[in-house]
Amino acid sequence: MSGSFSHTEGRIVALCGGIGGAKLALGLSKVVAPECLTVIVNTADDFQHFGLHISPDIDTVCYTLAGLASQEFGWGRAGESWRFMEAVKELGGEAWFSLGDTDLATSAVRTGRLQRGDSLTQVTGDIARALGIGATILPASDDRLATIVETDEGVLPFQEYFVGQHCKPRVTGLSFSGLETARPTPEVVAALEDETLAAVIVCPSNPFLSIDPILALPGLRDRLKALKVPVVAVSPLVGNDAIKGPLRKLMGELGHDVSLQSIADHYRDFLDVLVIDEVDAGAVVEGPRVERRQTIMKSLDDRIELARAVLAIARDQVLLRGEA
Amino acid sequence: MSGSFSHTEGRIVALCGGIGGAKLALGLSKVVAPECLTVIVNTADDFQHFGLHISPDIDTVCYTLAGLASQEFGWGRAGESWRFMEAVKELGGEAWFSLGDTDLATSAVRTGRLQRGDSLTQVTGDIARALGIGATILPASDDRLATIVETDEGVLPFQEYFVGQHCKPRVTGLSFSGLETARPTPEVVAALEDETLAAVIVCPSNPFLSIDPILALPGLRDRLKALKVPVVAVSPLVGNDAIKGPLRKLMGELGHDVSLQSIADHYRDFLDVLVIDEVDAGAVVEGPRVERRQTIMKSLDDRIELARAVLAIARDQVLLRGEA
Repeated sequence: MSGSFSHTEGRIVALCGGIGGAKLALGLSKVVAPECLTVIVNTADDFQHFGLHISPDIDTVCYTLAGLASQEFGWGRAGESWRFMEAVKELGGEAWFSLGDTDLATSAVRTGRLQRGDSLTQVTGDIARALGIGATILPASDDRLATIVETDEGVLPFQEYFVGQHCKPRVTGLSFSGLETARPTPEVVAALEDETLAAVIVCPSNPFLSIDPILALPGLRDRLKALKVPVVAVSPLVGNDAIKGPLRKLMGELGHDVSLQSIADHYRDFLDVLVIDEVDAGAVVEGPRVERRQTIMKSLDDRIELARAVLAIARDQVLLRGEA
Repeated sequence: MSGSFSHTEGRIVALCGGIGGAKLALGLSKVVAPECLTVIVNTADDFQHFGLHISPDIDTVCYTLAGLASQEFGWGRAGESWRFMEAVKELGGEAWFSLGDTDLATSAVRTGRLQRGDSLTQVTGDIARALGIGATILPASDDRLATIVETDEGVLPFQEYFVGQHCKPRVTGLSFSGLETARPTPEVVAALEDETLAAVIVCPSNPFLSIDPILALPGLRDRLKALKVPVVAVSPLVGNDAIKGPLRKLMGELGHDVSLQSIADHYRDFLDVLVIDEVDAGAVVEGPRVERRQTIMKSLDDRIELARAVLAIARDQVLLRGEA
């Protein structure tokens, strides 16, 4: 099925974090013509390490869409080697964040170009093209925006919480440093204003850690609210747990019910349809239209199948609206 | 012979650039007790690449003294792998400066620590210790100092001239950017003021590119002039050519005779002894005392032999002075 584009009815914009979201983005890239797909990626996990600008979510999305992602880890590149990290350890350097020899090249090329004055958008576009990706991959912002995790062990930069401490500290709050000055890029705004826009898909990424930093950018949530085309989110909760990552723990710590209703409420002001998993047959969710599909994506076919389903649901939503 | 220290008569300070100089520094490290050897290394070849702080001469000296240097290239580490560089090329990134996977770790660890506020001296010391080096390796300065090469093709940063353009452009002048603010480190000054100082050795590095940036630091040349202990230089010219590197071409372009006399003249104000190669039996050099030895260092034994010879020459010089 891969490579056969079934969708030719306008631009699809996906909002996406790393691993889980990238799976659906890959599915979408197999069924939407490349020139019609824009993936807007969270940049609030970005950080400086060894002087390099690391963009974990952008890289995961790029590697995933390029077919280069490690299946073993869910991050980084397949067939990776670790001689750099071994040498860092020999030198007594910081080894808590693993950077493979080839993965490192992406960060190095990015950092070099950012220091020469290119924007993250330009660099990301060139890297994606170099990796053979046809779809447009856009960082949500070219400006510094950094998730800060307030925990019972103090305030932690995101990667120190997420990778360094394996999400173990109890989270008491989240904030985004740089929000006073960060703006969505002109390219992001243009994608959402595109006359041919057919739907916005919120991928099954962590709403608090991956999607909120996108939504928090000035004007972005209002743009989604004002859209005339459907916004369809795929729930990252399945059977009241996350497939991967700290979502369940985080929701509890932040005082939210760990429920599909909380996901629907989180996106309430702009969401038209929430796609939940078939295992959640008994769930009652107030607010958006709810559709049940197989959302767990184990194989490439699963990713493609869910992408097709989400696009079909968006088309139905247009028809439903027309009838309403 | 290696590992048996013959020299126990005080501190030896060596001034050193990269490849050629590092060979003699290695020889010295085999015959001088580690606590008595200080190697002051040129930092004006340092540059930023991919956002990383690259210190080519410091790394060459460290790898050489640690027994990790590539014998094939004269720079970088032995048994290196190149997956990072291959991935950089795939991404269309800058590939003109080769950084091996393990070599890269040194630059990454250095950059991370510099950005956290540690000095180049602290970081270099820790890296050297981590690599098992007993001698003290000191950057000449913790401040930015960068060799600028004025050529018939325009003004070039050093590495662009040296690596990027393989020294091909005709050099019309050299300058050191940052000289207004750069200072020798307290550790460098302390080494030269050490009460136990027995001799200063100027390694057979390029006088213009590797030794001059050290000498140019405020007060440093005056300190050498004022020393009561011998300063012994090993000529980088052998048979009126350089063993390696652009010295011969550079001297001609800068309007110097390509001769041992030019080397002697260059160091005239502080040099006591110039050690020249046995092939230069007919050379007449005015100014310093001249000693002929085998200065071409092909084997480890050659390095050790020359180090022993240079130290013996320094001891003789003390006796000769006493007699005068």
